[in-house]
Amino acid sequence: MSDSYRRIVLASRPHGWVTEECFRLETAPMPALAEGEVRVHNQFLSLDPYMRGRMNDAKSYAMPQKLNETMGGATVGTVVESRNAKVDASKIPLSAYLGAVGMTGMTAWYGFNRILEPKAGETVVVSAAAGAVGSVVGQLARIAGIRVVGLAGGPDKCRFVTEELGFDACIDYKTAALPAALAAKISAAAPKGVDAHFENVGGDVLNAVMTLLNPFARVAICGLIADYNTPPGQLPKSAIMNPGMFLVARFKMQGFIVSDHLDLWPEGSSALAGHVAAGRLKYRESIADGLAAAPAAFIGMLKGQNFGKQLVRL
Amino acid sequence: MSDSYRRIVLASRPHGWVTEECFRLETAPMPALAEGEVRVHNQFLSLDPYMRGRMNDAKSYAMPQKLNETMGGATVGTVVESRNAKVDASKIPLSAYLGAVGMTGMTAWYGFNRILEPKAGETVVVSAAAGAVGSVVGQLARIAGIRVVGLAGGPDKCRFVTEELGFDACIDYKTAALPAALAAKISAAAPKGVDAHFENVGGDVLNAVMTLLNPFARVAICGLIADYNTPPGQLPKSAIMNPGMFLVARFKMQGFIVSDHLDLWPEGSSALAGHVAAGRLKYRESIADGLAAAPAAFIGMLKGQNFGKQLVRL
Repeated sequence: MSDSYRRIVLASRPHGWVTEECFRLETAPMPALAEGEVRVHNQFLSLDPYMRGRMNDAKSYAMPQKLNETMGGATVGTVVESRNAKVDASKIPLSAYLGAVGMTGMTAWYGFNRILEPKAGETVVVSAAAGAVGSVVGQLARIAGIRVVGLAGGPDKCRFVTEELGFDACIDYKTAALPAALAAKISAAAPKGVDAHFENVGGDVLNAVMTLLNPFARVAICGLIADYNTPPGQLPKSAIMNPGMFLVARFKMQGFIVSDHLDLWPEGSSALAGHVAAGRLKYRESIADGLAAAPAAFIGMLKGQNFGKQLVRL
Repeated sequence: MSDSYRRIVLASRPHGWVTEECFRLETAPMPALAEGEVRVHNQFLSLDPYMRGRMNDAKSYAMPQKLNETMGGATVGTVVESRNAKVDASKIPLSAYLGAVGMTGMTAWYGFNRILEPKAGETVVVSAAAGAVGSVVGQLARIAGIRVVGLAGGPDKCRFVTEELGFDACIDYKTAALPAALAAKISAAAPKGVDAHFENVGGDVLNAVMTLLNPFARVAICGLIADYNTPPGQLPKSAIMNPGMFLVARFKMQGFIVSDHLDLWPEGSSALAGHVAAGRLKYRESIADGLAAAPAAFIGMLKGQNFGKQLVRL
């Protein structure tokens, strides 16, 4: 066993967009194991949008990340040493447990089943449809026989969403400059209106979809990545410009975070694992190589440059 | 029986604020009764904010009011002639059935019990707390033993809300010029944060309360009267400027309209009638005299000049 390990610490907090200077790669001495602890040789690191929120020193659902301490992130790996009688050194399941049957899959499962609750004949819209969460939401809709329209950036992602994931339609939001033009495109793909919307992005997408909601629609707010780099004091891109729709369509908008619902993990995770095992639920991964590549991969993910779940092979 | 009757028709649609020129008082010949109809001598007319929405020719939850036809509105009165065997000429219940045990009371009851669902130890905030709906919401909270903070315009309404209706606190929103100052006042009256908010007004109040929401809070959107006279194309005062709070507090915001829930009328109305009969639920009425006074009373209500349920004695 090595007598040192490598870690990335938060070197400084970002103002607006994250830069690589926010991070510092360090080598630290390997600590001895205390009673009850295990040592894991990590093989994959998960990069997720929530990590951007923790980089601010502001009230949020997660505690702010402390400066000069290891950036938190989910990993999978192998137990190499144990002083915990309950943990043997057998293999921990690998990369899918950071994605489609892990945190991002559970996020999709919870929002779809507990907030959107779509019924037969309804239409669901999903933003960031090629992403780790959105791709699972849309496939859960497809598996349930519900019409699903995705939004994604660029023709490659849209083709993946319809041809590989089986969404009924996918709209390239980059081809619609104005919210009204975007709404017209979504409306053409959802001719009976929108009954449920799963929001990962915010901004123009959210405001465009809001104008198309049917009575008693449900909107799950999972992420607002369009604003994660908006400086404090500036009008958020996701500001809701048409609040009167709450009365016109009597809809529900609900934010959620999957870690509030750990009690549902066994139920959701086993459903997702069943879909993956049967080949009904597909996923794609973007894998960066080595811990030193993590900051650039994280910044790329915040700009939508990844394609599927963003991981780092360690 | 008179051979004519008086009615107010919609003469023109408003652009921004309603003016008296939007209405015209007419005399029309009294129609004969068809089989199945009854003739009612109306004694009270109810004036309600939803009527403003119907004056626009735009998509909303209610059909637009047609030009040059009688303005719709709820009334109570006496049956004076019947060609309907199911309706006898006995007295129909009077003004309270337009208010605390009628449509506005039911609106409060539905939003309080089916959207806010407050639990012991929580704090509820209500805007337009002296109004026909808000006053009932706050008293339902008080009856259930839940801390309730009202918002109202001016010291007279605030005194009524705390001293006569029994709210724990009431804030005069006119004494706080900026949203941050308003939030500070609400926060002082809700030191444990806000778990449920009943919104009748919108604008700065909604944005101020949003910053104070506790995790898993519920916000019922009943009305956004601050914007009913905002011209199309102008930024609504109720635009939601801090959408990130949906993630920070994982709250639910839900619009509703009581006429979607007529099935609950017997349950809600009998609960409200029980509270009124026992003296636990108080209400105040602003009564204008005569049909010709209705347009001015309606415009006054939209500006918050009424105190309690706005009626017209016919």
